[in-house]
Amino acid sequence: MEKEILNGTSSPGILTQDELKKIAAYKAVEYVESGMVIGLGTGSTAKHAVARIGELLRLGKLTNIIGIPTSKMTHELAVSCGIPLSDLNSYPIVDLAIDGADEVDPHMNLVKGRGGSLLREKMIESATKKFVVIVDETKLVKYLGGTGLAIPVEIVPFCWKFSAERLRVLFEDKGCVAKLRTFGDSRKPFVTDNENYIIDLYFKEDIGDLSLASDAILRLPGVIEHGMFLGMATTLIVAGELGISIKNK
Amino acid sequence: MEKEILNGTSSPGILTQDELKKIAAYKAVEYVESGMVIGLGTGSTAKHAVARIGELLRLGKLTNIIGIPTSKMTHELAVSCGIPLSDLNSYPIVDLAIDGADEVDPHMNLVKGRGGSLLREKMIESATKKFVVIVDETKLVKYLGGTGLAIPVEIVPFCWKFSAERLRVLFEDKGCVAKLRTFGDSRKPFVTDNENYIIDLYFKEDIGDLSLASDAILRLPGVIEHGMFLGMATTLIVAGELGISIKNK
Repeated sequence: MEKEILNGTSSPGILTQDELKKIAAYKAVEYVESGMVIGLGTGSTAKHAVARIGELLRLGKLTNIIGIPTSKMTHELAVSCGIPLSDLNSYPIVDLAIDGADEVDPHMNLVKGRGGSLLREKMIESATKKFVVIVDETKLVKYLGGTGLAIPVEIVPFCWKFSAERLRVLFEDKGCVAKLRTFGDSRKPFVTDNENYIIDLYFKEDIGDLSLASDAILRLPGVIEHGMFLGMATTLIVAGELGISIKNK
Repeated sequence: MEKEILNGTSSPGILTQDELKKIAAYKAVEYVESGMVIGLGTGSTAKHAVARIGELLRLGKLTNIIGIPTSKMTHELAVSCGIPLSDLNSYPIVDLAIDGADEVDPHMNLVKGRGGSLLREKMIESATKKFVVIVDETKLVKYLGGTGLAIPVEIVPFCWKFSAERLRVLFEDKGCVAKLRTFGDSRKPFVTDNENYIIDLYFKEDIGDLSLASDAILRLPGVIEHGMFLGMATTLIVAGELGISIKNK
């Protein structure tokens, strides 16, 4: 774990969480080189990286970049930043992806998808040579699910209650609660970019063997993908009040 | 393997494939009892079972049946046959399901979904206490994929070419060819009841360990479900020119 002290930050205590996210994102963009195909993440941290890449393109410091957006939202943001875009059909191999995460465990396993874009993120980030994850230090956990926040699972809308119940039963011994994600405060289901639903799983206990849990979830008919990204991150950049930490696989 | 000679069939040689399908279907419906929740299969064999259940309800020989249809097509057929219907949200445990298969191996593993309904079929048939598979004898194979016909995989439409290529590469050593299923003779993708696409996988060689193949397919982001139904069938009814065979797990 390499550690850097933030340049020019004499009063680190005053940095907001968003400023920390921005610091991590800018650091990640240092990995971007002209000519690369770049997976563009989704969320409040990744958006800083997208904006920064756009800025460097405008300044002429980066050229010949192709962005592969991980969501419709990121697509729009990247267009507004002037980043040329394409998709996995045309570029099945991505040089570098930069994205945030909701949780990161000590083995660099991630929970992603609280923003709802887990499927496209996983498709793109599983096709990348280098996957740089950017977080502020509040995202570090001892084990996935450890913040008490959700591990999301994307499912087909057909008989979603049945699928939610099967997911709950699968992890009954871990005190699992399964909730349909709704749109804001309404009872209307949140709908993903792929027109599917999200079941949020909350665990009272450590899930245990993550690979086994992953396969068990994926084997349920009706499940499309889950938000555990296991063994995928190659670099982790953490911005904290005392500086930036960089960890490589 | 129990074997029955067809009643009243003095010239078995003249039976058509559809007549064989009907014989298997009628035999399966003998397992249906009043008060049961029944998974209703999809396809040219299962439709005979649906029609037969409707007939027995009309005759008063069956009462208090709830059907759980495995496709929109079967839903319509069952409604026209007067079968009361519900879904897995209301009836998460199904007493008995009756469905056809495209291939059956000696271990009663199945290929299903050439009709495109594999996802709903698998959701319902994985929730059933007893799963009766009905086929004519042309469906029996030494190993799955052995007819040279497709093993279908339901995928999200997003970047389907990418997913198709990943599926092909996964089984490259088995001579796998991956093709998007199109609607009839057009170039328009076939769209499932769940608004997804189907990639048909053709194998030149035996796939080998089916459980490993299943998990490998399901782990690909973008894949929803595949048409291998492993260890799910509890009873197999095969109608052949020489009679009906019944095999139980």
